[in-house]
Amino acid sequence: MTVRETCLAAKAAVSAIAYSGEDEKNAMLAAAADALTANTDVIIAANREDLLVFSRGEQLRDRLMLTDERIAAIAEGLRQLAALACPVGEVLEKTTRADGLQIERVRVPFGVVGIIYEARPNVTADAIGLCIKSGNAVVLRGSADAFRTNRMIVQIMKEAIARAGFDAGFIQLLEDCSREGAREFMRQKGVLDVLIPRGSASLIRSTLENATVPVIETGTGNCHIYIERSARLQTVLSVVLNAKTQRPSVCNACESLVIDRAFAQEHLGELIAALKERGVEVVGDKESRALCADISAATEEDFYTEFLALKLSVKIVENGAEAIAFINKHSTGHSEAILTENEELAERFLREVDSACVYVNASTRFTDGFEFGFGAEMGISTQKLHARGPMGLRELTSYKYLIRGSGQIRT
Amino acid sequence: MTVRETCLAAKAAVSAIAYSGEDEKNAMLAAAADALTANTDVIIAANREDLLVFSRGEQLRDRLMLTDERIAAIAEGLRQLAALACPVGEVLEKTTRADGLQIERVRVPFGVVGIIYEARPNVTADAIGLCIKSGNAVVLRGSADAFRTNRMIVQIMKEAIARAGFDAGFIQLLEDCSREGAREFMRQKGVLDVLIPRGSASLIRSTLENATVPVIETGTGNCHIYIERSARLQTVLSVVLNAKTQRPSVCNACESLVIDRAFAQEHLGELIAALKERGVEVVGDKESRALCADISAATEEDFYTEFLALKLSVKIVENGAEAIAFINKHSTGHSEAILTENEELAERFLREVDSACVYVNASTRFTDGFEFGFGAEMGISTQKLHARGPMGLRELTSYKYLIRGSGQIRT
Repeated sequence: MTVRETCLAAKAAVSAIAYSGEDEKNAMLAAAADALTANTDVIIAANREDLLVFSRGEQLRDRLMLTDERIAAIAEGLRQLAALACPVGEVLEKTTRADGLQIERVRVPFGVVGIIYEARPNVTADAIGLCIKSGNAVVLRGSADAFRTNRMIVQIMKEAIARAGFDAGFIQLLEDCSREGAREFMRQKGVLDVLIPRGSASLIRSTLENATVPVIETGTGNCHIYIERSARLQTVLSVVLNAKTQRPSVCNACESLVIDRAFAQEHLGELIAALKERGVEVVGDKESRALCADISAATEEDFYTEFLALKLSVKIVENGAEAIAFINKHSTGHSEAILTENEELAERFLREVDSACVYVNASTRFTDGFEFGFGAEMGISTQKLHARGPMGLRELTSYKYLIRGSGQIRT
Repeated sequence: MTVRETCLAAKAAVSAIAYSGEDEKNAMLAAAADALTANTDVIIAANREDLLVFSRGEQLRDRLMLTDERIAAIAEGLRQLAALACPVGEVLEKTTRADGLQIERVRVPFGVVGIIYEARPNVTADAIGLCIKSGNAVVLRGSADAFRTNRMIVQIMKEAIARAGFDAGFIQLLEDCSREGAREFMRQKGVLDVLIPRGSASLIRSTLENATVPVIETGTGNCHIYIERSARLQTVLSVVLNAKTQRPSVCNACESLVIDRAFAQEHLGELIAALKERGVEVVGDKESRALCADISAATEEDFYTEFLALKLSVKIVENGAEAIAFINKHSTGHSEAILTENEELAERFLREVDSACVYVNASTRFTDGFEFGFGAEMGISTQKLHARGPMGLRELTSYKYLIRGSGQIRT
């Protein structure tokens, strides 16, 4: 099927999922989860084929690779979705006008959600599960590098859903994994209701450049921690090490420290030593290098970079105003934190830092649908339209107005 | 100033409006309203200059023209905004995790809103007013045809705001009204937070094609009324005439009738006669023409067209399922109505018609921010992302998460 045909097939089956009840959706999720577990061997066999020709380096290879445990975790994720409440149908507002017209605002699914992502086959099953539970049809465009794995996962899930007695046509995987195919996918205006790119900064840039479908931008996190002069050293060491080193390859990891001069003069050496000990490479501005020999020179580019690795940039500032301006200039609007005992400045930081999640005295690593209590996550939105921060089931819905009358006309 | 410089100037002044209190915003609105009234003569003089070289036809000319009464109405609109509650700062949710981390979701302004519109100078003042009240900086890109009028309105409003003691830099009008300038405007990613096109289908298409900034699509309304067999003739006549003829040039006017065969066989002649009497030209499918000689042949294109004039298309269907499918295929997702006494079918129509506003037994003309009780309106969204239907102050806001801790780290 062509890209357009695949998208139209999903749209034609929208009603199969949009009007399904809670029990039906949960039955689909359970059937799909059981089938993935039962077919672990064939999924791993398909994944081996993808891995055999994969040559993009160890870190990406690890994201592509599936194991028994990983497939079990994917299936468990689908089962957990069944336990969440579906937000569809929620009445958000209800008013009756003087003329008796009843206006109701009701939460509805988007319709057809497009997902474009890289060689991470777990996203395939997660995205299908989230779309089932939120009542959306879904068209998946994975990477060519993971095509055999994705095709197998989708086939197993769809067959299980069909065997359970449902029309599984609302789940579609693009067969065309070319760049031209991706561009065509991004332009299915009127068929796709929303497009969610999940992956690298370059994937997101290309999506914004080409899409005519409304996009939710996700994931790029050049996250900052501002260490204000009154911060407690113990909190600083604990939060910075957590935010930088607990899982450096994820979008909510810290990439840049902004430090008050007064704090740096006293504690920079100790902080950098602790980071070095955990294997972190530190680059910094001229002033930080004058204070600490273990810091090498940062380029201007470094301050805009999401390293996703054990690397960190350091910038020394005079005060909160300078810190906030620096962060708003360089950040991607994902997550930023202030470490301080100055409550007034903390509140100013919360107000003026223009990011999805702004923290006082806590690690940026908490920006996550599960940590926020959503039970599931489709990604972290870094735009301001529609959804900001972690996106759960609610963020995969729209609303519409239902207006009931008895012949009212406008005068 | 170049397009980029103008947008950056607005962004640089974001804090002047984003952190203003209710009283300050209301003082700005009052000062601007008073200044517009006091300067009616110079606005009309600037408008005359625009009109002198305008040559795009009478209907558009009327939209461009300002009079004493129209300027008074614009000023009154600004004063009414002051009476509305500003949604910024509303706490949408608040949770405390087991580890004591407090997560708060708070409504915030977008930041910088871009508006691109046609030769309707009232939009200039309305958009500025809505952005003041919702705490947003605004960059306006009006039509070259209205440039002198827009420049005068913006200058008067900014000077009044500055005289009242505020920084008016958060209001910016693009000087470059070229097509290239418009394209550059649509690509101010990272400076504009959202772009709202207000105007014709072609303006909206060009915006979707070129923009890298998130867009809220507005306004195109190919609105349908479905007359089901059980509908009361009196309701049909009253609602259809209202929806089609009360103000045919607006987006919530009815453009297409979908009629059950059983109803058409009995009442089509009477309905069409009533429309003809009001000057409505009716085009229809073959079956409708066989039933009524006053209907001329519709092209396939007609069924996709928002006439914005005293013209209407007619399609005969067998039943509700066929009507819903026809509407979902041809509609622009704005407003659709069913006229029926069959409650079950009415509920099915509400559920399955995929439009922002779906009506039972009422005129589509109610789709309007004022009629819905928002007190003001920035346009009608026909997309599903972020806002759907009439957009008031609330729809001009985003949210962010504020997280307060005491050293929490992720384990």
